[in-house]
Amino acid sequence: MRVLTELDRLRVVLVAARNPLNIGAAARAISNFGFSCLRVVNPYEVAFREARSAVGASALLASAEEYMNVAEAVADCTMVVGTTALRHRELQHPLRRLEDGGRLIRKRLASSRVALLFGSEKVGLSNEDLSHCHWLMRIPTCQEHISMNLGQAVAVCLYELVRDAKIPSQVVKQENATAGEVERITAALLEVLLLSGYLHSGSAASTKEKVRRLVRRLSLPSSDSKVWLGILRQIVWKCRQGGLN
Amino acid sequence: MRVLTELDRLRVVLVAARNPLNIGAAARAISNFGFSCLRVVNPYEVAFREARSAVGASALLASAEEYMNVAEAVADCTMVVGTTALRHRELQHPLRRLEDGGRLIRKRLASSRVALLFGSEKVGLSNEDLSHCHWLMRIPTCQEHISMNLGQAVAVCLYELVRDAKIPSQVVKQENATAGEVERITAALLEVLLLSGYLHSGSAASTKEKVRRLVRRLSLPSSDSKVWLGILRQIVWKCRQGGLN
Repeated sequence: MRVLTELDRLRVVLVAARNPLNIGAAARAISNFGFSCLRVVNPYEVAFREARSAVGASALLASAEEYMNVAEAVADCTMVVGTTALRHRELQHPLRRLEDGGRLIRKRLASSRVALLFGSEKVGLSNEDLSHCHWLMRIPTCQEHISMNLGQAVAVCLYELVRDAKIPSQVVKQENATAGEVERITAALLEVLLLSGYLHSGSAASTKEKVRRLVRRLSLPSSDSKVWLGILRQIVWKCRQGGLN
Repeated sequence: MRVLTELDRLRVVLVAARNPLNIGAAARAISNFGFSCLRVVNPYEVAFREARSAVGASALLASAEEYMNVAEAVADCTMVVGTTALRHRELQHPLRRLEDGGRLIRKRLASSRVALLFGSEKVGLSNEDLSHCHWLMRIPTCQEHISMNLGQAVAVCLYELVRDAKIPSQVVKQENATAGEVERITAALLEVLLLSGYLHSGSAASTKEKVRRLVRRLSLPSSDSKVWLGILRQIVWKCRQGGLN
């Protein structure tokens, strides 16, 4: 059996969502980011259990809990957070941006359960829904186009909850070629330039220096230097062969 | 006319996306987060221009640019980043987590154009697509369920690009009630407890102290103290009235 973690303490609560595809998409995002609990508050019937959009999360969708009202859906939580796009509404609640609110939710999840509420596609959470919330959170969308798709909004919020602010660069820094490797490549390139007629034996020394700088500006990876050398030597070989014809 | 910003330098490139609803959802997320450029690489015909999922972003979807191949779709960019869910593939590229890769993309957008590639719903980006990329980026989904919905993946990546790591708490910190306000409420509550018979005049002084501590643990907002005092005084009035009957 899977070990329960802090993430299992989050309840994603969809209030009056009407589109089964959005409910399925929310389930998929919950699963993607390692959460496990989906609750649906629907006074009317929505046939969401089989939503095809829950790709890879059909078990989570099948175990989604249905409630008749918000009070019951958040009863086991010590923090209840409503999401809002902030339209046509005077807020009676503290409002936090996701970056800030996410920190508080993560902190609370370390010790107890948190409900994160999302409203319906058309009108969001009602004032009655909001009255169950301790505070509200908004995704920093731009003023000209505030309203997000429900499934996308769930995904963005959950990503914020699992993102790691301290993540170091995970890339093994590529090792640059040594000066010796670069100089061998430069020599081979100069030979190609001479053999191909791009340069000729009378070219000024300053021209060679330009080529030397040209190669150094590439910041060649050490691991690629043999490949480049091989390419240039092959060209040298081909040019010489051509010269014999 | 809208002033062009750094965000307009990002090209979101959907390669071989098959579902018009996902293309529309991507357009919506692009618009939500203040970006403007969607490019679609589709060797076959996909009728996406009218996708209903582009709620509020139909203009952006209508102006999406179509390309026959990746090379043309990224030609004006100085950085090309592929997204991957990292399945069944040996990577030939540096791979960064979104938190880390997002930093690099933001930095580059300050001065030049960046392409962010998303592959098809079924198989992601092909090795040929990836060969056009400078490096790859992955969303930190959990190992058990790596693969995200395309529209949700786009939304999460774009959110990371606009999120503000330095966002301060935007909540006007609620001012707590002063000791004087708390004590007036405590006095009114004690009167209610006496009148209602919860306490009686013979109760120990330590009981009153318990009530005093009880009220102080509430951390009452200053703005609510009058309301609470009003409620308690109303109860006092009612209890006294009842006593006269």
